[in-house]
Amino acid sequence: MKPTMTDSDDVLKANGEFYRAFSEGDCDAMAAIWAETASVTCIHPGWRLILGREKVLASWRDILASPPAIVCQAVQVIHHGDAAVVLCEEIIEEARLVATNIFVLEAGAWLLVHHQASPMASTIGRQEGPSHKLH
Amino acid sequence: MKPTMTDSDDVLKANGEFYRAFSEGDCDAMAAIWAETASVTCIHPGWRLILGREKVLASWRDILASPPAIVCQAVQVIHHGDAAVVLCEEIIEEARLVATNIFVLEAGAWLLVHHQASPMASTIGRQEGPSHKLH
Repeated sequence: MKPTMTDSDDVLKANGEFYRAFSEGDCDAMAAIWAETASVTCIHPGWRLILGREKVLASWRDILASPPAIVCQAVQVIHHGDAAVVLCEEIIEEARLVATNIFVLEAGAWLLVHHQASPMASTIGRQEGPSHKLH
Repeated sequence: MKPTMTDSDDVLKANGEFYRAFSEGDCDAMAAIWAETASVTCIHPGWRLILGREKVLASWRDILASPPAIVCQAVQVIHHGDAAVVLCEEIIEEARLVATNIFVLEAGAWLLVHHQASPMASTIGRQEGPSHKLH
């Protein structure tokens, strides 16, 4: 008997496709993963908010010109109504980041509407903890 | 004629209440702004993901013991289906951060289900730009 695909499986698949496009520098796949109709927003590490599909995709074209080796791990999917929030860690060379990726359904496909990634302080041996006093 | 309250006004009000509780170190108000039923998650600057209402509120109790002077600005609200995503900048003393706050409706009130804040590089005179080569 075939296992049943659930919404979470589909969201995980979309999230995996985002990181595949990212690590392989695949601009066409990256463009296809971002929503066409909904407003899209992106916060790269250290950047300001980027608002709008054209500007977001332009930022990715610059980044994907030299794609980093990136591994996505510790993935969690949480459904909030008809939006799906993926929380995950990104290992980029020696850096560890934590990301929020928000997906919505458009024409039956889970597409990305928001991405924020930010560096984690060195947390070896700690489950969580502040890097500084910002909060 | 009274102006009509829209969903976005209500979300902005909830977001404002979050930052009021934050800057005033008001633990009771902070607890009240986080969803009761939905899964809640939080990523403080430099921290790992915190998952679950009890752990998230415990992290806020620690932070609110010494609340910082915080100003929220450049606020955008985007509705994605049942979820409302607030993007904003946080000015904490001399640091500038950018935040994603996700709200959902519970019993008629917009409550917080996810918060991620991360530092922006110095961006004076630039609209956006990378701080480093992470992405």
